[in-house]
Amino acid sequence: MLRSIQFLGSSSSSGFWLFHRLKLHGNQSFISISNKPLSSSRTPLIITSTTARCYRQFRASSIRSDSNLDGTSLLHLHLHLHLQPFDQLTVQGSTRKINFCQLCGGPTKYEIPAGEEKERAICTLCARIAYENPKMVVGCLIEHDNKILLCKRKIQPSYGLWTLPAGYMEIGESATEGAMRETWEEAGAKVQVLSPFAHLDIPLIGQTYVIFLAKMTTPHFSPGPESSECRLFALDEIPFDSLSFSSMLVTLNLYIEDIKVGKPKFHYGIINKRPGTSPSEIHAYTLDYHLRT
Amino acid sequence: MLRSIQFLGSSSSSGFWLFHRLKLHGNQSFISISNKPLSSSRTPLIITSTTARCYRQFRASSIRSDSNLDGTSLLHLHLHLHLQPFDQLTVQGSTRKINFCQLCGGPTKYEIPAGEEKERAICTLCARIAYENPKMVVGCLIEHDNKILLCKRKIQPSYGLWTLPAGYMEIGESATEGAMRETWEEAGAKVQVLSPFAHLDIPLIGQTYVIFLAKMTTPHFSPGPESSECRLFALDEIPFDSLSFSSMLVTLNLYIEDIKVGKPKFHYGIINKRPGTSPSEIHAYTLDYHLRT
Repeated sequence: MLRSIQFLGSSSSSGFWLFHRLKLHGNQSFISISNKPLSSSRTPLIITSTTARCYRQFRASSIRSDSNLDGTSLLHLHLHLHLQPFDQLTVQGSTRKINFCQLCGGPTKYEIPAGEEKERAICTLCARIAYENPKMVVGCLIEHDNKILLCKRKIQPSYGLWTLPAGYMEIGESATEGAMRETWEEAGAKVQVLSPFAHLDIPLIGQTYVIFLAKMTTPHFSPGPESSECRLFALDEIPFDSLSFSSMLVTLNLYIEDIKVGKPKFHYGIINKRPGTSPSEIHAYTLDYHLRT
Repeated sequence: MLRSIQFLGSSSSSGFWLFHRLKLHGNQSFISISNKPLSSSRTPLIITSTTARCYRQFRASSIRSDSNLDGTSLLHLHLHLHLQPFDQLTVQGSTRKINFCQLCGGPTKYEIPAGEEKERAICTLCARIAYENPKMVVGCLIEHDNKILLCKRKIQPSYGLWTLPAGYMEIGESATEGAMRETWEEAGAKVQVLSPFAHLDIPLIGQTYVIFLAKMTTPHFSPGPESSECRLFALDEIPFDSLSFSSMLVTLNLYIEDIKVGKPKFHYGIINKRPGTSPSEIHAYTLDYHLRT
């Protein structure tokens, strides 16, 4: 899952003092890296994964600095890394702290702005407020000959597990355009959206899934770069023991229930993950505020 | 609309050199302000509105610096300000540039990341990619005695015009929770969400409106800080000539059409604003890919 990490330290007195890349495997590592002189033992350390949308901020559990004859320092870090899939990393600002202003680069402070009730990251230089909003994941439930199309994930999170083609909606596109784009990218299928099927909020991770019913405009599909396999499943063959996400489990369950009693409806619901469970425990949820039209 | 602006200049050689607040009225201003010495005539100037969610980046059209006897400089700026409502400022990255990394504060460059197709702001220090995603605006269409509740806006944009209670969905809440919160904040009404009614994408401004049908749990409402008035309107009394946004016009039209022929459905659609028209021209749109269930 994690391809590489970067070590980046900053100090207000000396500017950036450490910049180093290395390959890393496993969840724990003891490393020593050498760079510019260390100005303070309390200099914060930021570790960032370069894997797109999969990052987490850490501090080293111990830092020791030895001076070398050439004026540089040898830095000893003992790291405990608990890198997790991206859908666990957007939880209510606790793990995804906004340290700097995107506009002017000034450092931020977390305060409640005048006239508001919620703490926000406010730039200490230009006073810009950095609002954080949920992200939409858009996808397609593709019906073909009483079967539906699933993709086996060739990327983390949920590598090797089955999903509907879906991904983050982009600026400048509509939800249907995004769902069709993701279907093309992940399943190599050109589709036409038929109707909205589900809007599922997952407040814990700041995501909203919007799934459309769709049909292939030509009966062709093939796995894209993020999929190892794409396959049509009859409803009684859906691999419920190896699905990727709770959102997919809920969507497929709702679809099968609808088909059993007639035709698909539109569903709204809140997926509340059971506290203390991991994202891979996809059955550990309640579907709340379920409304259908 | 604009309460105040901040003038913030930065220089890589001397750090931030200018930081000044002033009140501003009108779209054009000639000002002279004094502060620390100006290190370079090519120092970029950033102007930021402190009005929440209403900002735009500018450069002054002319900058001249005169040295004073006390070592400070007098800075002459000729500014042409074209400040616009926030819903015009999220257009596909053209006006809302990400200059710095939120995580490490490093400067960004716009490039297409490996394995992707779209240009992104990538941090030149930690390589973090800053993804930009559409924002959800959630609100309620409140039915009461064959009337619906509208709020007269006491804030910009669309000051003095009528809207359904609605606002940005927050991290950590569901769409229904957000819609109920906004209704409480803007209309002082406690409501129960009855069913999803509309999902309307506006790709040009990177927004998705999600509107729910709702009813008041007690028949009380009163304008909140962002509203000057709240009022129940019969369907033939809705002030269509003084509505605030295209999204509200579309929602109310769809609702009236549904009521005429039976009961409300669920609607998906894309509001494509006519190119070259201003946000205040709320009738200048087409409703595309309209799907109903």
